[in-house]
Amino acid sequence: MTQNLRRLLAASAVVLAIAATLPSRASAQSNPDLKALIDDLVAANRILYRQGVVDGFGHVSVRHPARPDRFLLSAAKAPGRVTSEDIMEFDLDGKAIDGRDRPVYSERFIHAEVYKARADVNAVVHSHSPTVIPFSVTKVPLRPVHNTASFLAPEVPVFEMRNVAGMTNNLVTDSARGKALVEVLGDRPVALLRGHGNVVVGPDVRRTVARAIYTEVNARMLLQAVALGGPITFIDPEENKLIEAGRGTRVTGHSVDRVWQMWLEEAQRGVNEPPR
Amino acid sequence: MTQNLRRLLAASAVVLAIAATLPSRASAQSNPDLKALIDDLVAANRILYRQGVVDGFGHVSVRHPARPDRFLLSAAKAPGRVTSEDIMEFDLDGKAIDGRDRPVYSERFIHAEVYKARADVNAVVHSHSPTVIPFSVTKVPLRPVHNTASFLAPEVPVFEMRNVAGMTNNLVTDSARGKALVEVLGDRPVALLRGHGNVVVGPDVRRTVARAIYTEVNARMLLQAVALGGPITFIDPEENKLIEAGRGTRVTGHSVDRVWQMWLEEAQRGVNEPPR
Amino acid sequence: MTQNLRRLLAASAVVLAIAATLPSRASAQSNPDLKALIDDLVAANRILYRQGVVDGFGHVSVRHPARPDRFLLSAAKAPGRVTSEDIMEFDLDGKAIDGRDRPVYSERFIHAEVYKARADVNAVVHSHSPTVIPFSVTKVPLRPVHNTASFLAPEVPVFEMRNVAGMTNNLVTDSARGKALVEVLGDRPVALLRGHGNVVVGPDVRRTVARAIYTEVNARMLLQAVALGGPITFIDPEENKLIEAGRGTRVTGHSVDRVWQMWLEEAQRGVNEPPR
Amino acid sequence: MTQNLRRLLAASAVVLAIAATLPSRASAQSNPDLKALIDDLVAANRILYRQGVVDGFGHVSVRHPARPDRFLLSAAKAPGRVTSEDIMEFDLDGKAIDGRDRPVYSERFIHAEVYKARADVNAVVHSHSPTVIPFSVTKVPLRPVHNTASFLAPEVPVFEMRNVAGMTNNLVTDSARGKALVEVLGDRPVALLRGHGNVVVGPDVRRTVARAIYTEVNARMLLQAVALGGPITFIDPEENKLIEAGRGTRVTGHSVDRVWQMWLEEAQRGVNEPPR
Repeated sequence: MTQNLRRLLAASAVVLAIAATLPSRASAQSNPDLKALIDDLVAANRILYRQGVVDGFGHVSVRHPARPDRFLLSAAKAPGRVTSEDIMEFDLDGKAIDGRDRPVYSERFIHAEVYKARADVNAVVHSHSPTVIPFSVTKVPLRPVHNTASFLAPEVPVFEMRNVAGMTNNLVTDSARGKALVEVLGDRPVALLRGHGNVVVGPDVRRTVARAIYTEVNARMLLQAVALGGPITFIDPEENKLIEAGRGTRVTGHSVDRVWQMWLEEAQRGVNEPPR
Repeated sequence: MTQNLRRLLAASAVVLAIAATLPSRASAQSNPDLKALIDDLVAANRILYRQGVVDGFGHVSVRHPARPDRFLLSAAKAPGRVTSEDIMEFDLDGKAIDGRDRPVYSERFIHAEVYKARADVNAVVHSHSPTVIPFSVTKVPLRPVHNTASFLAPEVPVFEMRNVAGMTNNLVTDSARGKALVEVLGDRPVALLRGHGNVVVGPDVRRTVARAIYTEVNARMLLQAVALGGPITFIDPEENKLIEAGRGTRVTGHSVDRVWQMWLEEAQRGVNEPPR
Repeated sequence: MTQNLRRLLAASAVVLAIAATLPSRASAQSNPDLKALIDDLVAANRILYRQGVVDGFGHVSVRHPARPDRFLLSAAKAPGRVTSEDIMEFDLDGKAIDGRDRPVYSERFIHAEVYKARADVNAVVHSHSPTVIPFSVTKVPLRPVHNTASFLAPEVPVFEMRNVAGMTNNLVTDSARGKALVEVLGDRPVALLRGHGNVVVGPDVRRTVARAIYTEVNARMLLQAVALGGPITFIDPEENKLIEAGRGTRVTGHSVDRVWQMWLEEAQRGVNEPPR
Repeated sequence: MTQNLRRLLAASAVVLAIAATLPSRASAQSNPDLKALIDDLVAANRILYRQGVVDGFGHVSVRHPARPDRFLLSAAKAPGRVTSEDIMEFDLDGKAIDGRDRPVYSERFIHAEVYKARADVNAVVHSHSPTVIPFSVTKVPLRPVHNTASFLAPEVPVFEMRNVAGMTNNLVTDSARGKALVEVLGDRPVALLRGHGNVVVGPDVRRTVARAIYTEVNARMLLQAVALGGPITFIDPEENKLIEAGRGTRVTGHSVDRVWQMWLEEAQRGVNEPPR
């Protein structure tokens, strides 16, 4: 659990009794740390869209800082258009706490089941990350070739819906399917969904967004390396351990802190990142 | 037939006698539902351009809601520059009802022949969708690898002009060529034209635009999967049936409703979608 | 020779005596048709840049309408920054008529030699068109797979500087190298320069720009078709002949007329074309 | 050493005693040539970002014109957001002269060691240039296929951290690792870092930026040439020697002078370059 979340938890303790009985918008107004978290979540939606990880589909959530059995997720909407008004609160059965007839993502069970099974996770991205999908339908495993995606080491597992539910609409629309997916994920940061996309998890929303972005970047690089032919040198799990150690804390000017501000400005300007 | 079209038909009944004798602009002014449909058609032109499905060439039409033997299509113009002033009405022989010397697309017969043969179709896109064309000139069939393009299952047929007309300018410039293309299309949503592009059809203009866009997206993904090598797991026709069931109605916040508003805003801003 | 050029020549006859003795800027001011041609040439520079055919390098010229032994070309400058002030006049030895110490492109001999050898040509593009270069360094010939690039049929020749001048700076910096390149070009619209780029010629500046753009588009498609594997169906020279017949005249709303206005607006907006 | 740097050195001699004892910002204010160099360095940051060579990571430095044992480099920050306020001065042990608690790049030792070993070098870029990385993890050497990247001839060496330090975080975070990298670089302009990126060096910041950009462009072209299959004709070292001779001086309208102004305007507009 990161330092930031610990701070959030401490601050949230005061308003906990109220927060539990009021809709999330109200608690956000009376809780500056929750408001900051919601701002990050809205930014995450915009950033993932601007960076090409999500298009009109895909979603990102954070665990409620004061209520580990709840999470925050937008109403059903294209991520690039999400505002703080759209953020809703859900329990771990995927039930909206204060639905007010807003449409909800049919695959919110991905988030619910991850939060149930993984106490170390405080943010979840589900996307149709475009260059990731080809790896989900072939036998070539997605493995890291670049430092920035070392967390993929040694390789990313693939969830095949047919194995657990036969022929379906290939969507994670209930808790059972979510649970089956989370079993394939195990204790890893990323799993692919065959013919569908991926799920990316992490200790906080910024690092999880960074993981989702660099998973896509690494997929492009690996695809090109495969096209070049011959043996490929992957990032070793041992190297990953040492690289991840440098990402453990949020230091000004380094790691996620450096890129988050850039991605945010890009999303706000509405300008594409340079082509990669 | 979608709920929206039923509503349009009901509303249009009142003005039908007038609509049949007046040029389409006049009927649009006296018919708010027809005006809304024309707005969607103009948006469709702009969206297909902004999403890279059409460049200066390609076109999109809708069946006239009150006159199933007519369709609406822009005068000959780059789709990204089409306005409601450009929308013309054609009969199923491809004859302009109120031409007023405006230039017309030479391949309007694609649209005319689809509407003749397919009572289930209310919108048609013809494009030079860039990543689709490589599949039209090779023996690798275009098949779905991603949920969002499941409608391509099991695979997309290819129309070869040489089989029906020998060496030509490879354009569908008369009813006979249009008819031959529609025979290859059969009851499917998409067919490719060898060395030329594709035709995409659907029950309404929004779903047809979505199909055209995700046909291109899927082509990119399949191309990458082929480059990775080895066996590919495609979306099964049975999976497609279950996925398509979820797209049958226009529900707020879901399926086409979610992406249409996003695409429209992107087209209006003049900002490219994020790179894929 | 196009209708437009005939009109230009007729109109230019009146001012021919003056035009021959004055610098090109002066003659442009007193000759509205020459001014229109220069506007098109400036637009061509901006369009080729915006469409990704040229970057900071590459250039485009037109034959002087009143003096077939002269051509108009920008001073040495990145094409995306060219204005009408930069347009200079050159003779067919590549000598500037009114240099005024402005820097000149070292490869202007490409243009000079094309105009010398090809009476049918009134515009020339030289570019480092990015996807074209891979075809110049491999044994895979650039051939048309798409209607819009049918003019490449049956295939594009490659000029190898080493064959005529041994090890050099690989630049066409004198008349002898230009002549050798033009011999490889023959009566075709396009030739590649190994490890360098291409030369594209045509009857007027708009069609030549369109050819340069669709040469790049077709190269991308062919590359993808090759990556898919197996036999490829190319546009047949017979098909090209019939397709080109439809491009012979400038008709409102069709062929080059349709795309030119779109490209111009894209260049003026400074907005990228949609990704392809 | 370029003419420009000689001029800078001459002008800087007057303020040398002061410059050595004052923080770099102060010396910049009293030294117009140093200020111009810092402006170029800030522009270099913005340009490398806008052209897609760096994303949130990567950095660019220049040798201090008056103190060859020092170099100028931004504080730890995303290159696209760097301003002249961020430029710091470092000695060749990577120690900040006037740190003022600003965060510093952990890999500044790449720069320090290059300046120590290479008297001919006055600017250094370190990037995660995306299409370069696939070449760093395969056995296919990065070689030039395009004139504009001839400086890569005959081929680019690859630095493997494991050879000198075993399993690490794969980052050049001390002088010893920097020294080992510089040994692999030798007297060349570019070396790759396996699974990480590249280092690009040159006689001044503009040419070094151009080299970094065209290294990426050439990597894309070579990747495509490899995908086409068969033997590839590379730029010969002899050709490179003759091409480089034309880049030796900064002439108005030619070589780096032509593209720098374009890149700068693109970076300032915040508009992407055209897709390549």
